[in-house]
Amino acid sequence: MPHRTLWPEAGEGAVFVIDQRQLPHGFVVARLASAAAVALAIREMWVRGAPLIGACAAYGLAMQTSEDASDAALARTAFALMGTRPTAVNLAWAVDRMITRLQALPVAQRRAAAWHEAALICDEDEAANRAIGEHGLKLLREVLERKPGGGRLNILTHCNAGWLATVDRGTALAPVYAARDFGLDVHVWVDETRPRNQGASLTAWELREEGIAHTVIADNTGGHLMQKGQVDAVIVGCDRVTRRGDVCNKIGTYLKALAAHDNGVPFYVAMPLSTLDWRLNDGLAEIPIEERDARELTHIAGVADSGERVEVRLTPAGSPALNFGFDVTPARLVTALISERGVVAANEAALATLRGGNGSAAHGG
Amino acid sequence: MPHRTLWPEAGEGAVFVIDQRQLPHGFVVARLASAAAVALAIREMWVRGAPLIGACAAYGLAMQTSEDASDAALARTAFALMGTRPTAVNLAWAVDRMITRLQALPVAQRRAAAWHEAALICDEDEAANRAIGEHGLKLLREVLERKPGGGRLNILTHCNAGWLATVDRGTALAPVYAARDFGLDVHVWVDETRPRNQGASLTAWELREEGIAHTVIADNTGGHLMQKGQVDAVIVGCDRVTRRGDVCNKIGTYLKALAAHDNGVPFYVAMPLSTLDWRLNDGLAEIPIEERDARELTHIAGVADSGERVEVRLTPAGSPALNFGFDVTPARLVTALISERGVVAANEAALATLRGGNGSAAHGG
Repeated sequence: MPHRTLWPEAGEGAVFVIDQRQLPHGFVVARLASAAAVALAIREMWVRGAPLIGACAAYGLAMQTSEDASDAALARTAFALMGTRPTAVNLAWAVDRMITRLQALPVAQRRAAAWHEAALICDEDEAANRAIGEHGLKLLREVLERKPGGGRLNILTHCNAGWLATVDRGTALAPVYAARDFGLDVHVWVDETRPRNQGASLTAWELREEGIAHTVIADNTGGHLMQKGQVDAVIVGCDRVTRRGDVCNKIGTYLKALAAHDNGVPFYVAMPLSTLDWRLNDGLAEIPIEERDARELTHIAGVADSGERVEVRLTPAGSPALNFGFDVTPARLVTALISERGVVAANEAALATLRGGNGSAAHGG
Repeated sequence: MPHRTLWPEAGEGAVFVIDQRQLPHGFVVARLASAAAVALAIREMWVRGAPLIGACAAYGLAMQTSEDASDAALARTAFALMGTRPTAVNLAWAVDRMITRLQALPVAQRRAAAWHEAALICDEDEAANRAIGEHGLKLLREVLERKPGGGRLNILTHCNAGWLATVDRGTALAPVYAARDFGLDVHVWVDETRPRNQGASLTAWELREEGIAHTVIADNTGGHLMQKGQVDAVIVGCDRVTRRGDVCNKIGTYLKALAAHDNGVPFYVAMPLSTLDWRLNDGLAEIPIEERDARELTHIAGVADSGERVEVRLTPAGSPALNFGFDVTPARLVTALISERGVVAANEAALATLRGGNGSAAHGG
């Protein structure tokens, strides 16, 4: 088991990633040796999760510098990488950061700088997530203190914002890991997260690997569990947060936020600052929502009794399907955002306190 | 294609049903020739849908009278049938109605009366659903009149409350069929309805057979579509409605009701009076919620490229799963209930106006 989800090959020619399409039934490491290979891996979701695709794209640009580090070549590659997936802003953030850094240097120095900068992005991602974990742990301890009788802490999460979605440690799951390390009794309700089942395939696998108690549920089930007092807090990741605190995340997040609000359950969003897009205000109107292949909904792959991986069609032939990847949760439904610089309310004044300082701060504006 | 989902064999020895486990990939008719076979078919969901399982159970009792029509035998069979599925009240309603009718007769007259009464339940179901369709059509025409620019009417539905869930015509889909017959341009967003996919498997198939425009979506998608103005009304069926108007229906209905409320989209519940349980008040506290086998969530069946029906496992081995079948939508989120006697608000005073009169009225109390 590698330490991270993404690591460079010795000699600066390639990176290794976990091919997440194969999980949970197979653990396969893929070697990506060109910017085009990185773009394909992002588009086809060998790697996914806002922070991880940002880090991966940074290495794509580093590979480009090994072939041709000219401004024109970098611009072409940057454009290609940013076009792979439209919603998560981390991709644009990482590409912008790399291009800004490299364009300031003579072409001959760009290769070494690029591989160094990509490694820095990875290190910073892990550090940010560990800080999110510590800030989130404080919130979870407060939730537990308020819980009558204490006992087990039941966290609901949607999609996968664990270490598989990042370079390491995760965003939404970082507080869960911090809670486990602190000695709390924690249990995670895992939304299966249709249509790609990142919860059932990735979060369940990751939590099982980590030895954390968890239960897979249909996406339909969370509201009922909240009504019955079985959820102490919801924590999700995010793909883009606007300056007023609207949260774009995996489709279905909005429904869980509504249910949390209706039942007085705190709804937390783990937000590395690389995911804060200060240029946007109204998330519903302004964030582009990726529409993916309907086949992700009409077909599904799993393991048959024979042990073979089989893809099957679920819907009647001739019934069309529509597959949006994300939705937007209005700021009014978000209890708090957990960033590496601390916990803030979901509004512009609070988010402004997180800006400025080093290069990992919120971009744009 | 049979006219109905359930029809008796000539000679009063058996009924035929569509084995709905095989849809949408195969159309298989099953013959049920004993009360035990009926109980199995209900429990294993060869037949499902609150009105249909009620009608089916009535025929189960009729078959019992062909073997032994004594009070004791009928009571045993009634008990067995009612134990097959706990949440939908129509099962208890139909069994109660049959037992009340039969116990009033000498044993020798019970067989003929039972087959007659079961047929009456089926006829009344179809008539009630047609009336629900007409009442619902009036609501849909009002929705369309309020829609800026008019045009296509987009209805979202959850699970299957079409003719497959009833003897004929459906409950939630009855207004859709009435709208189609009236000449409206109607399109249905079909929630796939995890974990058993009654939307993707049954509603999509049924609408395709009926030539009605529809699109299958993940259960996660409805909130986003409502935020974007793509849903003009939600119509769902129900498994039990309390006297104050709390609606128990397929798990996930509550989340769609929250989203409809948050976006000003009318949320209608098609409710035959056989589904109104006047004995209960607080749905969340009082309605038993069926927990089904976790395997319905961890495994799924579909058709492989070979054309073969294959069941595959989706989740990692060793990750537990939990599978509740229903949730409760509080009355405050329900715009109106559409019964065969007209449209009413979801409160006790309004529901009281529907009571009394003939045998199909709300039971209990």
